[in-house]
Amino acid sequence: MSTSAGCCQGCLHYVFDYETTKTLVIPSIRLGCAFRFTQLLVVLYVVGYVCVVQKAYQETDSVISSVTTKVKGFALTNASDMDPRFWDVADYIIPPKGDHSFFVMTNMVVTPEQTQTRCPELPSPSTICADDCDCTEGHSDPRGNGIQSGLCVNYSSTVQTCQVFSWCPLEIDTELPQHALLAAAENFTVLIKNSVTYPKFNFHRRNILPHINSSYLKRCQFSRATDPDCPIFRLKDIVSEAGEEFQDMAVKGGILGIIIDWSCDLDWWAGKCYPKYSFHRLDNKNPVNNVAPGYNFRFAKYYKAPDGEETRTLIKAYGIRFDVIVFGTAGKFSIVPTIVNLGAALSFLSLVPVVSDWIMLTCTKKKDLYGKLKATYLSEDAEAEAMSMGTSYGTQ
Amino acid sequence: MSTSAGCCQGCLHYVFDYETTKTLVIPSIRLGCAFRFTQLLVVLYVVGYVCVVQKAYQETDSVISSVTTKVKGFALTNASDMDPRFWDVADYIIPPKGDHSFFVMTNMVVTPEQTQTRCPELPSPSTICADDCDCTEGHSDPRGNGIQSGLCVNYSSTVQTCQVFSWCPLEIDTELPQHALLAAAENFTVLIKNSVTYPKFNFHRRNILPHINSSYLKRCQFSRATDPDCPIFRLKDIVSEAGEEFQDMAVKGGILGIIIDWSCDLDWWAGKCYPKYSFHRLDNKNPVNNVAPGYNFRFAKYYKAPDGEETRTLIKAYGIRFDVIVFGTAGKFSIVPTIVNLGAALSFLSLVPVVSDWIMLTCTKKKDLYGKLKATYLSEDAEAEAMSMGTSYGTQ
Amino acid sequence: MSTSAGCCQGCLHYVFDYETTKTLVIPSIRLGCAFRFTQLLVVLYVVGYVCVVQKAYQETDSVISSVTTKVKGFALTNASDMDPRFWDVADYIIPPKGDHSFFVMTNMVVTPEQTQTRCPELPSPSTICADDCDCTEGHSDPRGNGIQSGLCVNYSSTVQTCQVFSWCPLEIDTELPQHALLAAAENFTVLIKNSVTYPKFNFHRRNILPHINSSYLKRCQFSRATDPDCPIFRLKDIVSEAGEEFQDMAVKGGILGIIIDWSCDLDWWAGKCYPKYSFHRLDNKNPVNNVAPGYNFRFAKYYKAPDGEETRTLIKAYGIRFDVIVFGTAGKFSIVPTIVNLGAALSFLSLVPVVSDWIMLTCTKKKDLYGKLKATYLSEDAEAEAMSMGTSYGTQ
Repeated sequence: MSTSAGCCQGCLHYVFDYETTKTLVIPSIRLGCAFRFTQLLVVLYVVGYVCVVQKAYQETDSVISSVTTKVKGFALTNASDMDPRFWDVADYIIPPKGDHSFFVMTNMVVTPEQTQTRCPELPSPSTICADDCDCTEGHSDPRGNGIQSGLCVNYSSTVQTCQVFSWCPLEIDTELPQHALLAAAENFTVLIKNSVTYPKFNFHRRNILPHINSSYLKRCQFSRATDPDCPIFRLKDIVSEAGEEFQDMAVKGGILGIIIDWSCDLDWWAGKCYPKYSFHRLDNKNPVNNVAPGYNFRFAKYYKAPDGEETRTLIKAYGIRFDVIVFGTAGKFSIVPTIVNLGAALSFLSLVPVVSDWIMLTCTKKKDLYGKLKATYLSEDAEAEAMSMGTSYGTQ
Repeated sequence: MSTSAGCCQGCLHYVFDYETTKTLVIPSIRLGCAFRFTQLLVVLYVVGYVCVVQKAYQETDSVISSVTTKVKGFALTNASDMDPRFWDVADYIIPPKGDHSFFVMTNMVVTPEQTQTRCPELPSPSTICADDCDCTEGHSDPRGNGIQSGLCVNYSSTVQTCQVFSWCPLEIDTELPQHALLAAAENFTVLIKNSVTYPKFNFHRRNILPHINSSYLKRCQFSRATDPDCPIFRLKDIVSEAGEEFQDMAVKGGILGIIIDWSCDLDWWAGKCYPKYSFHRLDNKNPVNNVAPGYNFRFAKYYKAPDGEETRTLIKAYGIRFDVIVFGTAGKFSIVPTIVNLGAALSFLSLVPVVSDWIMLTCTKKKDLYGKLKATYLSEDAEAEAMSMGTSYGTQ
Repeated sequence: MSTSAGCCQGCLHYVFDYETTKTLVIPSIRLGCAFRFTQLLVVLYVVGYVCVVQKAYQETDSVISSVTTKVKGFALTNASDMDPRFWDVADYIIPPKGDHSFFVMTNMVVTPEQTQTRCPELPSPSTICADDCDCTEGHSDPRGNGIQSGLCVNYSSTVQTCQVFSWCPLEIDTELPQHALLAAAENFTVLIKNSVTYPKFNFHRRNILPHINSSYLKRCQFSRATDPDCPIFRLKDIVSEAGEEFQDMAVKGGILGIIIDWSCDLDWWAGKCYPKYSFHRLDNKNPVNNVAPGYNFRFAKYYKAPDGEETRTLIKAYGIRFDVIVFGTAGKFSIVPTIVNLGAALSFLSLVPVVSDWIMLTCTKKKDLYGKLKATYLSEDAEAEAMSMGTSYGTQ
């Protein structure tokens, strides 16, 4: 017999012969039950935890979302130092584009009629002066409000401060109204239109659900108890749901997250996939270490006087920024995660005999007997004997 | 022999002895082939589906992206009730900052010369009045346009409505031009600059591909057929690709998604990673249940009259908001997912003998013989006999 | 015995009997060590790589983030062709809302006093004309600046160009100051407030860390070496860390990414989870194929002259857009990925005996002996003999 023929025969052996393990059957109810119970535990774990609880058989995809917001409402301010003024959407929504983040101005410090000129600095330890020597021409203090002209001028009848070149008169933002000017903003409403896509599953959905009709949308207002599907929210309700008081928040402003959770199980009929709204304040309300608490920014409206000089009205706007945050993961049955997770879990089944054997060989009364019957110990003299035996079972 | 010595010997047994299963070789072509065929199926599944189709050997990362957009174009409006007016980018792009979401105004309702004063409400069932008794001073209807002064005044020669304090004259937004004022916007172009990063793989790429030169960029225009790599898009082409008619969409506005898919397989030479553009309308075109269809928002330009009185021009801007949505997942070979997925798939190989044995013991003619030879059944009287036997094979 | 009784007995066999594989113990140090060593390798891989390096036992979640930015600083411009002008936040931050992307204007081309009228086009090969025949009434060149009136007029004393209807005078944006007008912007500072949430783990954190107090925040400035936790950044430092020169970038503008990495291991005490800042230029600095390098956009301030005519100041704003990009993945121990990854890795343990058996049957001196003892070959004549044997071990 040549080597190649032997090799070929060896290969054929793998194809034409079937090799199965020899086993020892032990008629023991205890061992049998222990073995099956352990197997059952593994199977229960696979079915119960991996499949039902964790849905590990699903492929997942992240949401792609588009948001439009539209605020409605108007208010009248009647502060003692100002004329009555009417405010509508174009006045208090800055910037006007209604996308996923919109700002509603609720309070403000207005500094009208500013021009590029010289005026005395606001009094502070570093700006109060006795005469011109205390002020340096061209000096600009990062915490100041302009470039010093080098003169020391009267700020009031009692205080002298360095003169600066700046937009004058300077803004005095310490006089923030303690009751929000646009307190009526709590009754404004916002319509949030949100359409989402799960590109992997080619799934599209809007937050205006199919069963909602036009007449309902015209009069409804979101309420977790009675109208959980209405996409129109009263600002006060949003703030309340986040555990805050609107009038408190309106004074210094803040950031409020409108969180839309689109987590869906697309294995069931798709109608079950609907948005879940929740509301959280995103900035820190009363931290010990807060600089610039609340939320505000400055913007200006520019005018040109008839003589061509530019003037501006500076507005330090305090208000609530609403951030619509859309998140979600959709899951759908897919063969790969199923195989991976089932396979990984089933591989534990192959550890069960190891455990059962260990129990059999250590914890049973007849462990010595079982050990002897299960394992054949190969000793030196057995080798010689075996060498003279034939290879097949039949020739014994 | 002490207990500790026995324990030690037991441990050494695990290190110095090798325990292998005893097997029974059955020379059956049928069984052999069935066994190997089942194994082949598992291996084919691993290679074919998990590796080739699902790329389960890859680690993945999500894209981080930065987008700049710049619109070009101008138009002339010549409506019967307005002077001819020239519109350029600074006029119709609101807000001007060219980031991932830009708005092109295509239609509008302009209400010039509004001032804070009193004027009659727009006629509606709740605002039409016969005399002052029908109006309540200070009352503000959420669906109205201002705060009632308590007077009933002439709206027109035939209709009387309650007078309100508001920005007057009130906007009449029912007179929306049925042919978009800025219809010429369809020929505007937008240059989209997008750079992406996959931080896990330290991979950076721009949508202006390396082989594109400056002179090409100056004259090119995206076309799926002839110029698929040009980052300059004609607005009409974008809308057409999304299956919409620009002139229809321009009247009431809408939201259009420019979706850039950067899904890449980084295992192959990185040059294969390029952006794929697609376009979808994101809002609902003609739904049965739509409130405020299309897309619009109000903004105002503020002026100061020579006498110091503030006037504004209110613009209800209708137009198309283009949202550039960048998404993508890059995959690259990594050892952990490879091991996990291969391991899980291979663990099915250990289920193959279970299947084969079941076939052998139920479906073959010689199943009784195979069963007897494979399994040794331990009976009561065998135990006594075995107790007297030595442990090693050779002493039998 | 009826069939159903036999079937029932067969089922009970699985519950009440325990079937274990028969094994052959070979007292070989070499084989034993090889077997245990291979097992050790698999276990080491599981513990070392999968668990320690890749943290494959963790469930992960992506970050949800909210960002507020507030720029501080002022500057004086003193260009030769303009009056000295003072710039503060309301002037150079466009749009004013401080969200995750803010733009600081550093250079500009200002075209004041534009009105809707007629003026000569800027000279270019396609606009220079000799007489009215070279100009077409109503023609608008996409690369031009307005709609031609059909007249050929003097642009300067030497050049004649076609007259256009547009916002006149036209912007001449080739005269961009080569030294940025607002060069002082390098000393502006920005306070970045960032709060993050990992919704799956109900974990909230701010970038203003708990140990930072208010007085520190008032004077600190981010420095990687000395103040790595301070959330106040000097613009020049940001640009320097990104490897760019502020004054170069300020001329034509650019986009700079402030990347906050919140990758956290939540298994350890949560205090270890803190933001890591990095800075990268996101647009391409000096590419060979760049159109419109840098970053700029046009916006206008609208005025109304006392006679009611609208004028505007067009500003082509060059500057740096700072994009705050928050990303991160938090990991926390979870049973499912642990099981999946451990299971997958352990399934390799079941491949170890296959390898060891192959070594035993091919590489050892006594391979023939081992082969004979391990595998029982079933031959034709053995079958008949076996058929006459009893099923139980004891009846042999």
